[in-house]
Amino acid sequence: MKLSQLRKRLSGDHNFKGHTILGSMCTEPHKIAVKTFKRFLSTNVGDPGLFPKLIELEKDYIKSLGQLLSCEAPGGSVVSGGSEANILAMWTARNRAQKHKREVIISEFCHFSFDKAADLLGLTLVKIPVGSDYKIRTDLARKAVGENTMAIVGIAGTTGLGVCDPISELSEIAVEHNIYLHVDAAFGGFVFPFINGSSKFDFSLPGVMSITVDPHKMGRAVIQSGCIIFREKEIEESLKIDVSYLSGGRAINRSILGTRSGASIAASWMVLNYLGYDGYRKNVQNVMKLTDWFVNEVRSIKGLGVKVQPECNIVGVCTTGDINLKDLIREIRKCGWAVSEWPDYIRIAVMPHVSKRSLVKFLADIKRILEFFSVNN
Amino acid sequence: MKLSQLRKRLSGDHNFKGHTILGSMCTEPHKIAVKTFKRFLSTNVGDPGLFPKLIELEKDYIKSLGQLLSCEAPGGSVVSGGSEANILAMWTARNRAQKHKREVIISEFCHFSFDKAADLLGLTLVKIPVGSDYKIRTDLARKAVGENTMAIVGIAGTTGLGVCDPISELSEIAVEHNIYLHVDAAFGGFVFPFINGSSKFDFSLPGVMSITVDPHKMGRAVIQSGCIIFREKEIEESLKIDVSYLSGGRAINRSILGTRSGASIAASWMVLNYLGYDGYRKNVQNVMKLTDWFVNEVRSIKGLGVKVQPECNIVGVCTTGDINLKDLIREIRKCGWAVSEWPDYIRIAVMPHVSKRSLVKFLADIKRILEFFSVNN
Repeated sequence: MKLSQLRKRLSGDHNFKGHTILGSMCTEPHKIAVKTFKRFLSTNVGDPGLFPKLIELEKDYIKSLGQLLSCEAPGGSVVSGGSEANILAMWTARNRAQKHKREVIISEFCHFSFDKAADLLGLTLVKIPVGSDYKIRTDLARKAVGENTMAIVGIAGTTGLGVCDPISELSEIAVEHNIYLHVDAAFGGFVFPFINGSSKFDFSLPGVMSITVDPHKMGRAVIQSGCIIFREKEIEESLKIDVSYLSGGRAINRSILGTRSGASIAASWMVLNYLGYDGYRKNVQNVMKLTDWFVNEVRSIKGLGVKVQPECNIVGVCTTGDINLKDLIREIRKCGWAVSEWPDYIRIAVMPHVSKRSLVKFLADIKRILEFFSVNN
Repeated sequence: MKLSQLRKRLSGDHNFKGHTILGSMCTEPHKIAVKTFKRFLSTNVGDPGLFPKLIELEKDYIKSLGQLLSCEAPGGSVVSGGSEANILAMWTARNRAQKHKREVIISEFCHFSFDKAADLLGLTLVKIPVGSDYKIRTDLARKAVGENTMAIVGIAGTTGLGVCDPISELSEIAVEHNIYLHVDAAFGGFVFPFINGSSKFDFSLPGVMSITVDPHKMGRAVIQSGCIIFREKEIEESLKIDVSYLSGGRAINRSILGTRSGASIAASWMVLNYLGYDGYRKNVQNVMKLTDWFVNEVRSIKGLGVKVQPECNIVGVCTTGDINLKDLIREIRKCGWAVSEWPDYIRIAVMPHVSKRSLVKFLADIKRILEFFSVNN
């Protein structure tokens, strides 16, 4: 079989260039990232001695992200994505904690990677309700702290609505009780630093021990690229496997994966170097401008509303009156749109691949569906 | 910065095309795999509803591997590599086992991903010594079975010497005591099926519940591509997270990773389809021919020997007489060769990227070093 035949076989699938994907937190990678990734496709930094310069590049990249997140000398590494990063953070916290401490205080709206981490690591997630702003209720988080608390997790850019938990308050609780605080900024890590006046979530808060940031989301890098950043190199010492036999010589392994893509490092580094903080800021300004426009449009449509005022480029579109959300989503999907369904709203992620043109078309489709509903009601 | 500048910055690193890497179980991917991977770089099958045809391709691929491994209707998935696959197998076994069963019977020469799995999952590895053939001693494995045994692991293609544990005997023990048997064929899975008369290790043995196979090793696919194959779809049911909000619609997630490369699936499928079993057989015949030649050459050099007669394309080169192995490895590495150092031998992996020409050069360097040693002794 030829590649052209395979392309044909797979041709019904969505793709980011097709402008139909409106609910994904991944996006079309930046051109320079794609070009770089392709060049280093066969490098395996799981054998670091073979690729000392790529490893240096990784350190450089982690340092840059650390600085973006207010930390001068961070530890950490480039991993396969936010799930691996969050699991590594929980694994680290568990191995540093006393044996009886196995509870994690976390928002009920946490990413499912924490459920995986809990099952894998034998932890109990103490899921704390959110307030009307969809952020963890810190009064309840504080009350939940006890003898068995191993860690607190704050989310900077929730999966559901892109809001930022009150992480400065979580940091106070963490410092007061000497508890490990991890921040899941898989989505927000490449967004909030570039929005003026957004909530603090980074290492400038003294309780924060580690942060997950995903280059393959708003970092415009290539799947699979995540990062775990530790406040100090010392923290990651609780996770190490000494591998003596590698071709490049003995090395310490700290990831879940063994074979590890050097292309992810090179591409993530390259896009940061190419865009710079200014490029990322512009990128974020663009999607936020489109987000604001979209929110206003949604609010102007009878029968639709917005769940919360977005803090980043994630919008929760809800229905008002007697419009059935499930029916609406079914019809939207029939039109070919890939949207994210939540119990009481539709999540739209205004990612770099989403154009104003496709949002206009999407809104026109929604209006048409709503009209059809009202006529047939 | 331009890509050309980054290439320059990283130019000191090894690469598979440079013919200096003699100790790696990864290799240069097949051209068709590279081409295919590049085409589907931005697909994320962590949101399977967006890519239903890629998911179909994954099922097709798992079915093909299952058939190669004597199983008609397997479960399983394409994951990031052997480490994730082995951890998934142990996670599955743990979630199926009674709470007190937390011991895993495994060869002392197991891959370090099992140490990770044990730390993650709260398991105890009962490491069984190997015999003079470097295979797990099944008499000791049998004795180790007890009330707390959760699983037995057999290795088809050990990391150290590429030998195959007596998996048919492990299968007998597993069946007799009703214990989960996992086979780590990360390396051997794409080798042993194509060598006539090699040991049985697959689902034709009734005890085998799951097998790890790495397309990105001898499967000629692109990093990061591993596979976990289950005897029956029902087995993987113990690992599932229901994710309701995906853009492509509700889906079950069974991997450690969340965002998951569709390119790995497409490229792995494509190379299997392109080469076919015949192509793989030829591939294996080529590396085995070179391996046999290399072993004979090594045996003809005074002061060198071979640890065991290779069962696949992995050779343990040891020193005899008073030649110090560590000194030899140091000098070999000074010549620019990347070899794998074990306590009492050098591991050479005769992978598809390794040419006879580079092995000739390598042996000439070794002879020169040995002469230098003998003169200066």
